Amino acid sequence: MKSQKHDRPPSAKEVPHKIPKRTIGLIAGAGGLPKEAAALLVERGQSVRLVGFSGLTDCDLQTAAEQAQFLRLGQLEAMASALNDMGVRELLMLGKVPKSLLFDGQGIVDPDAEALRVLSEQPEFGDENLMTAIARWLEGRGFSICDQGEELASLLAPFGALSARTPSESEYADFLVGRSAVRALGSAGIGQCVVVKHGSVLAVEAIEGTDATIHRAGQLGGPGSTVVKAARPAQDRRFDLPAIGVSTIEAMIEAGASALAIEADSTLMIDQEGMVRTANHANLSVWGFTQDSDREGRPS
Amino acid sequence: MKSQKHDRPPSAKEVPHKIPKRTIGLIAGAGGLPKEAAALLVERGQSVRLVGFSGLTDCDLQTAAEQAQFLRLGQLEAMASALNDMGVRELLMLGKVPKSLLFDGQGIVDPDAEALRVLSEQPEFGDENLMTAIARWLEGRGFSICDQGEELASLLAPFGALSARTPSESEYADFLVGRSAVRALGSAGIGQCVVVKHGSVLAVEAIEGTDATIHRAGQLGGPGSTVVKAARPAQDRRFDLPAIGVSTIEAMIEAGASALAIEADSTLMIDQEGMVRTANHANLSVWGFTQDSDREGRPS
Repeated sequence: MKSQKHDRPPSAKEVPHKIPKRTIGLIAGAGGLPKEAAALLVERGQSVRLVGFSGLTDCDLQTAAEQAQFLRLGQLEAMASALNDMGVRELLMLGKVPKSLLFDGQGIVDPDAEALRVLSEQPEFGDENLMTAIARWLEGRGFSICDQGEELASLLAPFGALSARTPSESEYADFLVGRSAVRALGSAGIGQCVVVKHGSVLAVEAIEGTDATIHRAGQLGGPGSTVVKAARPAQDRRFDLPAIGVSTIEAMIEAGASALAIEADSTLMIDQEGMVRTANHANLSVWGFTQDSDREGRPS
Repeated sequence: MKSQKHDRPPSAKEVPHKIPKRTIGLIAGAGGLPKEAAALLVERGQSVRLVGFSGLTDCDLQTAAEQAQFLRLGQLEAMASALNDMGVRELLMLGKVPKSLLFDGQGIVDPDAEALRVLSEQPEFGDENLMTAIARWLEGRGFSICDQGEELASLLAPFGALSARTPSESEYADFLVGRSAVRALGSAGIGQCVVVKHGSVLAVEAIEGTDATIHRAGQLGGPGSTVVKAARPAQDRRFDLPAIGVSTIEAMIEAGASALAIEADSTLMIDQEGMVRTANHANLSVWGFTQDSDREGRPS
């Protein structure tokens, strides 16, 4: 007969020492996000085992990882073996893998037989298709894929103003145009970013990336544009949440863009402090929106 | 008391000599379309009176017009006066006015007080907003705006293959991805063109124009892409129907794109003969689709 004591759920205070140190397999693409995430995981006392990709992943990442292996992109079997050897089951897939590599990945992409099989089974290479297919392949090998938004919740943009300056009336009007445009794009499985000025969509992101889109908008429409970035409506939050960082702000400064609107709770911020400092220094407005926040919800 | 003879409608045979020679005021932007249209109108015995824009409109257009006046873009009052002086009531608005001029039109755009008023009344500069606003302004001055699709029906792309080569299976699959993407874009009031390869949208047109979009897709995704161009679902057919010509095919050849799908009955073809010849020479596939044509409807 069990005592009442054993039946009631343990309180938070009683269990911390029983939580095993989690071991996370970080599959890291390009950009600053994997590094930011690795630091966060280590800070939480988790053990990070890294799979990086030659020519793509920041080599500095190795310092945060207890174990690391760099592979050529597309070596699925080698990746599964490496992760097994490192003793990880839970995976976090992070960082950019530019889709243009699919079309011109000479020297970086080297698909093995399994990768070619997975690719050949794809009816199309839509943005999420490939990631989903690779995730499913990994799951078939016994791995589980963590949710980016959950693991990195502290990096998600909040609702409201992040910068000292809130959006002006005209920036807000441009944001509303951009928000509906980026939602339409996302629904069609295309990009996550548009740039708007005077209500006109100057540039739309497909596979060129956000920074290139911002630069093009600057060339076409001059200064004073508003950049809007959002997750796809049916986004799989395990991977490919939109991410921004200091480089986004720097691209905006170069292009003369004046405001950035990012979807709250769905956009990962890399080096938020540096980002906000850079934005404030250039008097840019950065703020987090939700798909249904309206003028009343605008911070002022 | 009227005789029965006078009551019945006149037969077609009886009236041709009574149809007045129509006088069309051609408001011409950039590109080859206004010239093609002017030749067509003259061939039909219509009288063309031209308003062109310095630095934008092809000067050769003057040879087709009985009267011509070149103005600076944005001189609405001067345009209305010129059209009145030329004795025209029916207007055909044709040719590109790059939207980037709105943002950086130094030396070409010189808005008068009326243009500034019309601009200031626009809540946003969406693709159709401005054209609609200008059309409305002209209507307020007693002019009527002709339907491009009606006046230039013979230039509209037909359904089916225009080139010797029909689309391959994979080009057809890419076209289907592109068609749904371009519809989503059009519904959101953005561009009219996307470029697709392996089911992935490589590039999306906003204000940079179709040729720039095709070039970018080539740089990002390499050869073998499919270009899809369509009218916006709620397009005002009086102006801004998508147009393609030899330059579109040349841009595709430079970028290595292999197939072009254009919306039948909604896309104007400039120099169809030259376009098809150029496409056939490079073994490109060009064909006209409808929004609901399916695989069964595919020409083979």
